[in-house]
Amino acid sequence: MTFQVHGTAPSTCTGRVLIALYEKNVEDFQIVEVDLMKGEHKSPEFLKNQPFGQIPFIVDGDVQLFESRAICRYVAHKYADQGTPLYGATAADAALTEQWLEVEAQNYNGPIAALVFNLVFAPMFGAPRDDAVVAAQTAKLEAVLDVYEQRLSESKFLAGDFFSLADLAHMTYTHYLINMAHQGAMFDSRPHVKAWVAELFARPSYQKWLALPGHLH
Amino acid sequence: MTFQVHGTAPSTCTGRVLIALYEKNVEDFQIVEVDLMKGEHKSPEFLKNQPFGQIPFIVDGDVQLFESRAICRYVAHKYADQGTPLYGATAADAALTEQWLEVEAQNYNGPIAALVFNLVFAPMFGAPRDDAVVAAQTAKLEAVLDVYEQRLSESKFLAGDFFSLADLAHMTYTHYLINMAHQGAMFDSRPHVKAWVAELFARPSYQKWLALPGHLH
Repeated sequence: MTFQVHGTAPSTCTGRVLIALYEKNVEDFQIVEVDLMKGEHKSPEFLKNQPFGQIPFIVDGDVQLFESRAICRYVAHKYADQGTPLYGATAADAALTEQWLEVEAQNYNGPIAALVFNLVFAPMFGAPRDDAVVAAQTAKLEAVLDVYEQRLSESKFLAGDFFSLADLAHMTYTHYLINMAHQGAMFDSRPHVKAWVAELFARPSYQKWLALPGHLH
Repeated sequence: MTFQVHGTAPSTCTGRVLIALYEKNVEDFQIVEVDLMKGEHKSPEFLKNQPFGQIPFIVDGDVQLFESRAICRYVAHKYADQGTPLYGATAADAALTEQWLEVEAQNYNGPIAALVFNLVFAPMFGAPRDDAVVAAQTAKLEAVLDVYEQRLSESKFLAGDFFSLADLAHMTYTHYLINMAHQGAMFDSRPHVKAWVAELFARPSYQKWLALPGHLH
């Protein structure tokens, strides 16, 4: 049975999973479209598969999973022997990958998701933009980027001198903030962060994700 | 060299790591006390080890790590062959463990941390309690517990019929909310959640954590 990704390509969390699949040279998956505009992710049928009403979830034979970072870990382990090694080479590399993946989930995701919501999705759907939230979350994200700038002055990527699942997890929201919300200045003003983003956006996995139909422009 | 945990035993995040060590029968670790009252976690020396100014971090030979859930994963992998198997028995068990560990980090931790802050730490330090936050976060946590009640009617623990890292990650904040903030009613009113909490609190790892000096009473 085909590896099914239930979600929608432009979604940041669905995109995280799709980029992981591309990094592992898995391209024979099927995207099962969930129409967020119709509220399909809140339907009783969907909630049986994802009780929090969020995309994506995957079905891979007997394995059914939700939470994008858990799915990415599953993809990295299942396809450990092909494509990009997403945990580096050693146990210490893997531990640092998990550390920076947690940093992404706990420190980066909150402010950048709030910014993308207010600067991209709210105007798109006629919802009000909350300027106080934008100011507060921008300050939070800048503080996180200061830590990243220091870290990326020591190693090319977050977990070390290898691209990992930790870097991968940042790609979709960073795309939205820079390319859709035009907030690239806070990245460009930090030279090591700027170089890191350039590395992420040059990856074929990112280009393949962006080439999927349905993206916002 | 001894496995060092830089933090303080009563902290929810330090506690998560200590309980993982106890589950793995690792007891020859050293707690290197960080005095939060003195702001030691914001000192330049500390920030070299944990750039976000948070506890805990660990030093284990050449490996130095922060982020409690990343440290727990490291402990689970390093000591895979001893103590409680924290990822179940199969690759599918491990994938579901990661799924529910992400649910804890993304859905459970936010509301329960806000409640524990307002109901335990704020009164303790004379800070104002925000009743609007308490109401909103209680509603959020109750919605999460509804999902848990359904899940725990299908399996004894979150990832399946085995205690895992996902359950473990819930223990410290749940302790504070029930035993220190006296908010047990929302757990007791859901029979499967109630039975799950009783299982968690009966574990020797939890008892050993509570027996460490420095806990609040």
